[in-house]
Amino acid sequence: MKKKLAQLKTILEEVDDLSRANALLGWDQQAYMPPGGAQARGSIMGTVSKIAHQKFTSIEVGKLLKDLNSKVSDLDPDSNDARLIKVTQRDFEKATKVPSEMVAERAEMASVGGLAWRQARENSDFPSFESHLEKVVDWNQRYAELFAPYDHVYDTVLDNYEPNMKTAEVQAIFNDIRPKQVELIKAIAEKKQADDSFLHQHFDEQKQKEFGAEVFTQFGYDLNRGRQDKVTHPFATNLGYGDQRITVRFGEDFFNPYIFGALHEAGHAMYEQGIGEELARSPLYGGASLAVHESQSRMWENLVGRSRQFWSYYFPRLQEVFPSQLGNLSSEEFYIGINQVKPSLIRVEADEATYNLHIMLRLEIEIAMLEGSLEVKDLPEVWNSRMQEYLGITPPDDAQGVLQDVHWSMGYLGYFSTYALGNLISVQLWEKIQEDIPDLYDKIENADFAALLSWLRDKIHRHGAKFEPQELIQRITGSKINGGPYLKYLKDKFTEIYKL
Amino acid sequence: MKKKLAQLKTILEEVDDLSRANALLGWDQQAYMPPGGAQARGSIMGTVSKIAHQKFTSIEVGKLLKDLNSKVSDLDPDSNDARLIKVTQRDFEKATKVPSEMVAERAEMASVGGLAWRQARENSDFPSFESHLEKVVDWNQRYAELFAPYDHVYDTVLDNYEPNMKTAEVQAIFNDIRPKQVELIKAIAEKKQADDSFLHQHFDEQKQKEFGAEVFTQFGYDLNRGRQDKVTHPFATNLGYGDQRITVRFGEDFFNPYIFGALHEAGHAMYEQGIGEELARSPLYGGASLAVHESQSRMWENLVGRSRQFWSYYFPRLQEVFPSQLGNLSSEEFYIGINQVKPSLIRVEADEATYNLHIMLRLEIEIAMLEGSLEVKDLPEVWNSRMQEYLGITPPDDAQGVLQDVHWSMGYLGYFSTYALGNLISVQLWEKIQEDIPDLYDKIENADFAALLSWLRDKIHRHGAKFEPQELIQRITGSKINGGPYLKYLKDKFTEIYKL
Repeated sequence: MKKKLAQLKTILEEVDDLSRANALLGWDQQAYMPPGGAQARGSIMGTVSKIAHQKFTSIEVGKLLKDLNSKVSDLDPDSNDARLIKVTQRDFEKATKVPSEMVAERAEMASVGGLAWRQARENSDFPSFESHLEKVVDWNQRYAELFAPYDHVYDTVLDNYEPNMKTAEVQAIFNDIRPKQVELIKAIAEKKQADDSFLHQHFDEQKQKEFGAEVFTQFGYDLNRGRQDKVTHPFATNLGYGDQRITVRFGEDFFNPYIFGALHEAGHAMYEQGIGEELARSPLYGGASLAVHESQSRMWENLVGRSRQFWSYYFPRLQEVFPSQLGNLSSEEFYIGINQVKPSLIRVEADEATYNLHIMLRLEIEIAMLEGSLEVKDLPEVWNSRMQEYLGITPPDDAQGVLQDVHWSMGYLGYFSTYALGNLISVQLWEKIQEDIPDLYDKIENADFAALLSWLRDKIHRHGAKFEPQELIQRITGSKINGGPYLKYLKDKFTEIYKL
Repeated sequence: MKKKLAQLKTILEEVDDLSRANALLGWDQQAYMPPGGAQARGSIMGTVSKIAHQKFTSIEVGKLLKDLNSKVSDLDPDSNDARLIKVTQRDFEKATKVPSEMVAERAEMASVGGLAWRQARENSDFPSFESHLEKVVDWNQRYAELFAPYDHVYDTVLDNYEPNMKTAEVQAIFNDIRPKQVELIKAIAEKKQADDSFLHQHFDEQKQKEFGAEVFTQFGYDLNRGRQDKVTHPFATNLGYGDQRITVRFGEDFFNPYIFGALHEAGHAMYEQGIGEELARSPLYGGASLAVHESQSRMWENLVGRSRQFWSYYFPRLQEVFPSQLGNLSSEEFYIGINQVKPSLIRVEADEATYNLHIMLRLEIEIAMLEGSLEVKDLPEVWNSRMQEYLGITPPDDAQGVLQDVHWSMGYLGYFSTYALGNLISVQLWEKIQEDIPDLYDKIENADFAALLSWLRDKIHRHGAKFEPQELIQRITGSKINGGPYLKYLKDKFTEIYKL
């Protein structure tokens, strides 16, 4: 068994190396590649992915897995080796079920679709995007059938981002919290708007960047194993053990996009920096799921970064950096301003109270499309009526409505709900952390994040992808993923701020 | 034949894609990678190289080549397809002759050796580097034997950088010019030194960078298909069709390193930007040889960038950028200063008149080591006595002598002479260009480089690696590579400057 395991690991190391190479190709594409390189970059990334896929789905891997599975019961089921075999088996089964023509078709679809989407959004022209989106739905429907039988057709795509999570579970969670979030937002809307006009001024890019680095290195994001670079659409990426980078953007005359984006991405990067070195170069070298990943980014962005205690420490520091813009403000006024709740059209700019509703409408639409009960051409109508129902606003055009996100154009169905689930998980964990670290907020007020990071490292980060998301959250908090804690957090926070 | 050729091309495309991925991994390693990423990066690059090598040396490629070679006589021997088959056959034979253990041994040697060299140089401790260098020599001796019989043992390693060039040819060329260059330098040394003190001042990095970009984009280096980034040891790299980048360094209080380095690397990048798109993703997608490549970089750096006419146009512009440093100087004084001839210890900082002598002593040492007639432990002594003989100076320590270059530590033997050959070729071409473009210097004086670049594109760049270096130079100039034109250029230029 030892020898076969070593053989498997060697192949998996090479597969991981290739995927890190592709991550660098992707990072560079967004951050530094000159425009002329676009086409060649597509070929290079295509070749690297294809070879990684071939290596991973080889007959040799299949044989090794078969042999290893017959003896896996000899191992401690929580050991790295047992989990490695389990996760590799799961990924292998999925990867080998999809015919290579469908893999190629998907890559082609993503590349053509990205372009079609950009043009459609630019011209706010949904009809020009319809036929492309129909192809995406069709591809995903055929994909789903490869995994029949299923409880719900949407389970098959959700599983790609949340291993073993079921559509019914997500629906139950969302159905529970949706009316309560809608109610909360309505209550807030009746109150006086928080003033955030001071956030809409010019803030020097370089100074913002240095302030961000000051904060997130204090969090524990290690720049000897990372860096921040400017892009249009920020993300975090893992380029191999010891190299986890974030990318950031700057609002032209708006403070929020950089700082909250940077703290968010730093949260993702700290997760990856905390994965045990012994898991590197294997399928366990990554987060448990997208939602668990998002719980980390949202925790540092929101639970820490939008808290009163955080700004009690950092606002005076920020005033030193931007005296003319913020010199006359109190820390409390700043806190209120950055926590303004205001239903808005664009998901990525939404506040903590409204964000999940953007996700819920997308999930409903995705499910209906995949089920075949909603035709693509009817999307704008459904989108706009849901926006009115949940948030009380209607997009003036499709560019600010149904065309705002890139995901569908790339072929991704099943992705969106992870954003909202991440919010929920972040507060479930936060409650547990407050039990374990009773003076958590005092520590935050002193910019002392060591105990928090160390808790996250121990409970979550170091395990990488060893545990499925529900299993992990259950182990840590004693409950499955649910919306109760998040709702309570929202109510408490905004009742206080808005004097509800 | 058509079908087999298409099959071969598909494999070669993938091999090229992998090598471009590795080029990006290498570029990032030098330009942006955080220190923590070093080890993982080594594994990733190792895996990508290994897979590229496996693909290229596969039985399938061998079979396809065999079939294609039997029919290659049906093709025009200068056609892209005929040349592709020829070059691929040549590279395949070489790549398959080296056992994979030796390939791995070499990678290990390069990685360990780089570290050993850095430490040895830091402490100026040659003995600590001896055993490593002995391994490098031993590896190269074993490598050479794989290619027996040969005319000269050194032919086998030279061929890796200058396809089909013979040691005897290089020795004949160098033996011809060495005494004449030594004589010239002695004559200059008896004259009054040119004043270059104004170059040793502080010049703002960002302003230097912008000035450099102004110049090299006027040359024709297209930044929509390139970019410049800061590193410790500058280089140019090709990341796939449409993406050719340069890297640059800045002297802390010295003008020369940035600008002449940038023009040099831009010369390399323009070569790669000029290769025909139909050659992309194939073994023909690159320069004819390192020497031909160097002829392009040295031409833009020296023949253009250190000419009186060039600075007659650009010096007033440079004065606008650095008025306090250069405001009181004449263009002529600047021209004299940047052309100061002064025997110095470090190759990369050498002027046009002394540079080749640094190369010749290295070549002599390499040949003697490979022949086994010089023991590694005796290197410092030989180095220092040659420096005294050729340049009239003796290094105060080995860090500034035999330990200054990285090449040997990485296992490269056979590389150095390409630098000097590049100088010679640049002037051979330059003579021909002046015949074809009689008002070349007038054009340079007006910053009009279009005719020059177009000549280079047509005669050299577009052909990529279709022709071997001697064949290419012979086709263009009617002569093989030789030192006559370079010697004449040096004599004319420095007789005038130094009033010899």
